[in-house]
Amino acid sequence: MALVVQKYGGSSVADTESVKRVAHRIVGTQRAGDDVVVVVSAMGDTTDELVDMAGEITDSPPQREMDILLTAGERISMSLLAMAIHELGASAMSFTGQQAGLITDDVYGHAKILAVAPERIKAALRDGHIAIIAGFQGVHVATNDVTTLGRGGSDTTAVALAAGLEADVCEIYTDVDGVFTADPRIAPRARKIGRITYEEMLELAASGAKVVAERAAEYARRYHVPLHVRSSFSCEEGTWILGSYDEGDAPVEAPIISGVAHDNSQAKITVVGVPDVPGMAARIFEVVADAGVNLDMIVQNVSADASGLTDISFTLPADQGDTAMSAIYAVQGEIGYGRRLYNDQIGKLSLVGAGMKTSPGVSARFFGALRDAGINIEMISTSEIRISVVTRQDQLATGVEAIHTAFGLDAKQIEAVVYAGTGR
Amino acid sequence: MALVVQKYGGSSVADTESVKRVAHRIVGTQRAGDDVVVVVSAMGDTTDELVDMAGEITDSPPQREMDILLTAGERISMSLLAMAIHELGASAMSFTGQQAGLITDDVYGHAKILAVAPERIKAALRDGHIAIIAGFQGVHVATNDVTTLGRGGSDTTAVALAAGLEADVCEIYTDVDGVFTADPRIAPRARKIGRITYEEMLELAASGAKVVAERAAEYARRYHVPLHVRSSFSCEEGTWILGSYDEGDAPVEAPIISGVAHDNSQAKITVVGVPDVPGMAARIFEVVADAGVNLDMIVQNVSADASGLTDISFTLPADQGDTAMSAIYAVQGEIGYGRRLYNDQIGKLSLVGAGMKTSPGVSARFFGALRDAGINIEMISTSEIRISVVTRQDQLATGVEAIHTAFGLDAKQIEAVVYAGTGR
Repeated sequence: MALVVQKYGGSSVADTESVKRVAHRIVGTQRAGDDVVVVVSAMGDTTDELVDMAGEITDSPPQREMDILLTAGERISMSLLAMAIHELGASAMSFTGQQAGLITDDVYGHAKILAVAPERIKAALRDGHIAIIAGFQGVHVATNDVTTLGRGGSDTTAVALAAGLEADVCEIYTDVDGVFTADPRIAPRARKIGRITYEEMLELAASGAKVVAERAAEYARRYHVPLHVRSSFSCEEGTWILGSYDEGDAPVEAPIISGVAHDNSQAKITVVGVPDVPGMAARIFEVVADAGVNLDMIVQNVSADASGLTDISFTLPADQGDTAMSAIYAVQGEIGYGRRLYNDQIGKLSLVGAGMKTSPGVSARFFGALRDAGINIEMISTSEIRISVVTRQDQLATGVEAIHTAFGLDAKQIEAVVYAGTGR
Repeated sequence: MALVVQKYGGSSVADTESVKRVAHRIVGTQRAGDDVVVVVSAMGDTTDELVDMAGEITDSPPQREMDILLTAGERISMSLLAMAIHELGASAMSFTGQQAGLITDDVYGHAKILAVAPERIKAALRDGHIAIIAGFQGVHVATNDVTTLGRGGSDTTAVALAAGLEADVCEIYTDVDGVFTADPRIAPRARKIGRITYEEMLELAASGAKVVAERAAEYARRYHVPLHVRSSFSCEEGTWILGSYDEGDAPVEAPIISGVAHDNSQAKITVVGVPDVPGMAARIFEVVADAGVNLDMIVQNVSADASGLTDISFTLPADQGDTAMSAIYAVQGEIGYGRRLYNDQIGKLSLVGAGMKTSPGVSARFFGALRDAGINIEMISTSEIRISVVTRQDQLATGVEAIHTAFGLDAKQIEAVVYAGTGR
């Protein structure tokens, strides 16, 4: 008998019919002999609708109130799911984040989990219940106030509970069959990945793959929680995310390419004519970070002429573009740079795989394929297991297909199923 | 400086525009120098929509899950209201029933308040905040599970908090100007009552007047909480509900007639041919009560002939009709009655006023007015301060108007305002 934590996202519980479908799967798991803990997101667009209502009232809601507002959606979905399970003759109890013991700090809107004390969940399992837990929410340790975990919160709730309960597996149910070698909407011959390491999944998630939240993958890596990403619309095995390759699974020929990720939600800022003296680049990054902006790739051109000036470029989430541009403008006098350039028509393309850095052939093939496809490269960044480039946004899809083909990732036939009624 | 508890019902916060309007009133009260505690219901039809969703999933939801589902609506309205107050430059914090210290038993669906421990509310007031509390909900003392208080729950939350905080007044905001001498939709010349005792309000509420929940009026009576029922759409004084008449206000000539109430949500069951032996009537009421049905008026006809049989009639909420009929059917063999008759086309009309029983002229005028209006009376029941009759439902409105006129309650001009955009 295993202990299974299952997480269902909003598209899996979009309406009451979907809730009933998911209930069948959950009860089936229990009847197969496992203890089942379920983490559920708000139904469909509920959270967006709540955000819209807040927007009708104020542009600057107190974050404490925003958090209690947003947690209403999961209370609805969790109780309806418990009812649907009950209707099938099994027994379920639903729990809020507070009741499930998800203790957080008080950074409303993106609270950090400080501890998991799932005593009530353990008791419910002992009594033969299926435990349903509201995703995305916790309670502040000191005030008893409700907090939300922010983006990817429900995935993180599931992984944190799986760690706290020492579950055998944490299943992340979504509307695709698993993690693919590329986004099937762009690369139709993308293949489902059977297994992948935490590190590779982290790089894919950080590079734009949306199927598992980066934060949840990080949490799983730290606490060694086996993840199984699969579809709530089929019974196929999905993608296993594990600590390392078993013997026999181990890469015989390095490198193993995991897949190609893309991200077109970024923008690029270039600060032109920065005095090339120590500390100037650091000062720019400092004011941008102080404004709460997350930088991604950074490139500084060495000043080739005798002007003593240099250009600094970096990428950032496009929705933080205005904030960053204002922060840089505020220090123009202090730094004495020339101009600021802003470009949100960019895309980021990343190839992720184990042992990549130690295989010089990978880079050659990567850049060769992009050249042959006529893709212009604006920035480059690499890590142990990743190569990323920034291209023009309108060339991004062409680049993803070219790289996918060049590294032999194309499936012989189309594998990715796009399920009816879902967003993709 | 006074401490004011204000309760706003669903029609007062039907949409985000209404939430903003209510926020203005609340901030105005605070700026006038008072401490303000607000109890808020779910917006408009939210609770009905949640009930409908549960109905799509199951006919018999576990009541614990139903309660956590239904409390989502107040979390939404309370946080939006706190945001709207913040937008006006004042400071507000919202609190769930649990956070506000509304401790209940575990009778899900109609939990009873066991204690009120509003420490966080007191602290919020000390810090200069307006405190917004979710109506209708509490927390079970032992399990930390969420409970709902059932029908009239938000009124009860407000009165309980007012008692626990020793507030100077509990204002019940609704979509009419106060308590009227009759329902203005039926008796257009109904007058607003300036003040009334708890006992009279209780009789009016029990007789069908919906403006204040009977249970809240009972709670207010027990803890001497001054109630002020008024409209959230105007600044008029409404109806004060207080312990007793002050000297000077005291009735010079008994009786003081408070008003005419009506109720067309009841049904009548008649059990025909019951053996007229001791204990048989009691047995019928016992099985009906065991089925959870609330009886109201009861009439037993004395057997006038030599048959030794009698007929027993009683009224009950029409939505409990099937349950009661089944319960009686189950004991037909045991009791040996003849037939069961069911009639939901009835109405109940009640006249409420202080000192009524000691004024014989009241009954004479009451029944004379009904006779003159051609109303047929099916059942009669009286209390210290009330006379009620059951009539045909299609004669109920005529009866209300006739009694209202006969007791000189008609206003010289129409007083009741029906506010745009509300249900009445």
